[in-house]
Amino acid sequence: MDSKDFREAAISSIDEIINYFDNLGDRDVVSTVEPGYLRKLLPSEAPDDGEPWTNIQRDIEAKIMPGITHWQHPGFHAFFPCATSYPSILGELYSAALSGACFNWICSPAVTELETIVLDWLAKLLGLPECFLSTGPTRGGGVIQGSASEAVLTAMVAARDKYLIETIDSNLEGEAREDVVAHKRSRMVALATNMTHSSTKKAAIILGVRFKTIAVNAADNYALTESVLATTLADCRALGLEPFFLTATLGTTDTCAVDDFAGIASALDSYNKEEGPGGGEIWVHVDAAYAGAALVCPEVQAATNISLINRFHSFDMNMHKWLLTNFDASCLFVRNRNWFVQALSVNQAVYGNSASDGGLVTDYREWQIPLGRRFRSLKIWFVLRSYGRDGLREYIRRTTKLGEEFAGWMRERKDLFEVLTGPSFALTVFRMAASPKEADKEEGEPAVEDQRNAMTKKLCDEVNRSGRMWVTSTILDGRFAIRFMTGVRRTEKEHVEAAFRLLVEAAEEIMNE
Amino acid sequence: MDSKDFREAAISSIDEIINYFDNLGDRDVVSTVEPGYLRKLLPSEAPDDGEPWTNIQRDIEAKIMPGITHWQHPGFHAFFPCATSYPSILGELYSAALSGACFNWICSPAVTELETIVLDWLAKLLGLPECFLSTGPTRGGGVIQGSASEAVLTAMVAARDKYLIETIDSNLEGEAREDVVAHKRSRMVALATNMTHSSTKKAAIILGVRFKTIAVNAADNYALTESVLATTLADCRALGLEPFFLTATLGTTDTCAVDDFAGIASALDSYNKEEGPGGGEIWVHVDAAYAGAALVCPEVQAATNISLINRFHSFDMNMHKWLLTNFDASCLFVRNRNWFVQALSVNQAVYGNSASDGGLVTDYREWQIPLGRRFRSLKIWFVLRSYGRDGLREYIRRTTKLGEEFAGWMRERKDLFEVLTGPSFALTVFRMAASPKEADKEEGEPAVEDQRNAMTKKLCDEVNRSGRMWVTSTILDGRFAIRFMTGVRRTEKEHVEAAFRLLVEAAEEIMNE
Repeated sequence: MDSKDFREAAISSIDEIINYFDNLGDRDVVSTVEPGYLRKLLPSEAPDDGEPWTNIQRDIEAKIMPGITHWQHPGFHAFFPCATSYPSILGELYSAALSGACFNWICSPAVTELETIVLDWLAKLLGLPECFLSTGPTRGGGVIQGSASEAVLTAMVAARDKYLIETIDSNLEGEAREDVVAHKRSRMVALATNMTHSSTKKAAIILGVRFKTIAVNAADNYALTESVLATTLADCRALGLEPFFLTATLGTTDTCAVDDFAGIASALDSYNKEEGPGGGEIWVHVDAAYAGAALVCPEVQAATNISLINRFHSFDMNMHKWLLTNFDASCLFVRNRNWFVQALSVNQAVYGNSASDGGLVTDYREWQIPLGRRFRSLKIWFVLRSYGRDGLREYIRRTTKLGEEFAGWMRERKDLFEVLTGPSFALTVFRMAASPKEADKEEGEPAVEDQRNAMTKKLCDEVNRSGRMWVTSTILDGRFAIRFMTGVRRTEKEHVEAAFRLLVEAAEEIMNE
Repeated sequence: MDSKDFREAAISSIDEIINYFDNLGDRDVVSTVEPGYLRKLLPSEAPDDGEPWTNIQRDIEAKIMPGITHWQHPGFHAFFPCATSYPSILGELYSAALSGACFNWICSPAVTELETIVLDWLAKLLGLPECFLSTGPTRGGGVIQGSASEAVLTAMVAARDKYLIETIDSNLEGEAREDVVAHKRSRMVALATNMTHSSTKKAAIILGVRFKTIAVNAADNYALTESVLATTLADCRALGLEPFFLTATLGTTDTCAVDDFAGIASALDSYNKEEGPGGGEIWVHVDAAYAGAALVCPEVQAATNISLINRFHSFDMNMHKWLLTNFDASCLFVRNRNWFVQALSVNQAVYGNSASDGGLVTDYREWQIPLGRRFRSLKIWFVLRSYGRDGLREYIRRTTKLGEEFAGWMRERKDLFEVLTGPSFALTVFRMAASPKEADKEEGEPAVEDQRNAMTKKLCDEVNRSGRMWVTSTILDGRFAIRFMTGVRRTEKEHVEAAFRLLVEAAEEIMNE
């Protein structure tokens, strides 16, 4: 493919992509292919000779598109959004052209420096405390990771090493030190609630440290509170375990709950006081993967007490969820970048260069699991500039309001639905109301609950089968529930109205069965 | 940016990218900006209002390009290549448009299925043993990771858990099991040579297991041999340590050495026999990050004994290095996918769906550290189809031959240069010859060696200062050496000739000083 061929192929691809977005609503949201569909359509080996682009492009619509679930579809109300936007696509285009394994500053200074700058821009937009800025007082800063899972793993590795440094006699050496470290490791425990994203547990599994789940409850709106955390910390101490890591969430996966940052800080203060000197600090990682995007609005900064996270250690949000940037762009901020560097720096002669050796520059390979990295800051830069602060706020407020309207309509149909949580950050969680036959029985009675779970599951399957919308489910205290999210950029009021009508029709039918 | 704006912006970007590639040779290879250059050029905050694309695009050439080191430049002879190609760029374009967090099959069946299929295509192209195919006899298969570092980490986590399962009494439970695991973990050790890429050490640090470096030597051409490995294993046993993981390399970072696969297999056989039943198996991960690309040529498959890796556990190669695909596309193959799933599967109610629950499909989230994933197989598919098997072979053979020619010219100038290793996979490692004044002194005498190191370092700096080429260095047994790599797609014979002339001129000047 020479430059002329590429120009033709690229323009034709651009046109196909525009056409895809302009007519996306006509497609079914979720793919309906059977497992193994694609193997039947493709040869079993790569071709011997190169093929012309027209052959390849034809196969995208014919063979790939039937297997695509359309995350940008206006009827996509599942999970969380996974954004894209035209400026973001242009960012990936340039990034692919400028491909490099930019592990060191010298491997492309612009890749490192633009990342530092746009993450400072983002931190300011989100109202993060100054300690998370690269120019702040505590040598903090941001780094782009591939996903929130990599962010929490990176934070946990740093937290573990920081804790070991704080709690182990630095005079110990060799075998004696190994023994103490091994014993210490076997007592260390990472904490998260039953509403925290599973990536914290996965990070603990990878590190081989204990993991303890803190149960939160409906009465607290599924958020972690001071008293629940204090009880957990006391339990750990009673068992001889040493908590070293806690994930606090701004916008949990199931219900978009926000943990009580003030309460967490207070519980940790008390714990530290009891531990006394020589006790290691518990690292608090704030997982704001989805809802962190809403912090572009000052009213959300105030409502979530975001300024309090200056007490914590790291903060992560995914621009690729609700902030118009395509996967992957997980923005991880740390209060002191030395914590990452001391845990993750591994040197090799072949990477030596005067800029790095002089210590004048940031080498992001020391802030992450991988060595090499793509030029991901470009798409963030394009998105922040194309939309501007006000454009981003407008988008978040518009999609948040859609969630409020949806929840309002749900609450007007108490005969059909029960809203369990929300609307919170464009997410409402609901289930079927009790059927008239069951309504006089006791709430919470097993048979009634089983019946409602079955009805709600049926509702979920029915509306998804339409192809017009996709909702996913969860289970809250044994109650099967549907999550309805309105954050996708192409979702307008008419789409939410249509989805609500579909839900009502299906629910009425189920209720009458 | 609406569809009309996007079309205009995208076509203008395509033209700029074509112009970039067509005139790339006119630019300096390495950026010469000073640290902090970009902060002076950009505002300290994101704009309040959105900006038009023309403003943004103007800044790419004006502000970003001065900070780019051009990995696609024909004079880029540093590290390893980090490929891109027009078909690969089109893959990223479509992938950005179809953005989704495709952690489960149902999140876009095509994303999972195309990945399985093109990795089977690739395994066949590379001549990997059948056990690494998804359709093979051992439930193997391939998965695309972000980088070779993530691949080795994933393999090591799986290896650790497999080893613990094999060596710990499955009847143990609770606290008793925790104690045994903690003790076992403290004795487990991951092995790699001093020529192995640093990612293996980094993975061991992340996991918190011991790491032992095996010294290989010039007499063995810096490859790991049976006897050296056997000695290391015996040393470990004598210390009460338990080796559970070994990285074997096909194309080491420093010199592109290939470890002796037959010798490694034989040393492990002997070790296992002595261990007897109840001893855990040592997982062997083959890191072929760069040179694995050359396996598309049957003569390389034969020369490296690649069929022997059916004795090993995992194999990784980066299409984004030497196989025309832009970063990131690290292709990791495993002999039994259950090893990944048992180590990395973490379930959460919100991800439940009938296809996954039925066990009929692959959910790649269980084969990797992150949860979500991009549609990376698309670019691999485009590249394999656009070039075809023969196009890929032609490219590898052409750039390999350039390396052979370069090394030949070097060897003709023994008055100036000493080739230390290679050419191996388009990489030659060399240093300055002894100066006439020193030539009568003893080889290996410290003063002579220091002098040659200083001269070689000076040569490296001189030619890089020209802007016409970029070479990087390493240190082999205390000898400072220059690595010269000819794998970049745009590098033609004329560029290698020009680089050689530049090296000769600079070397002659240094020699005459």
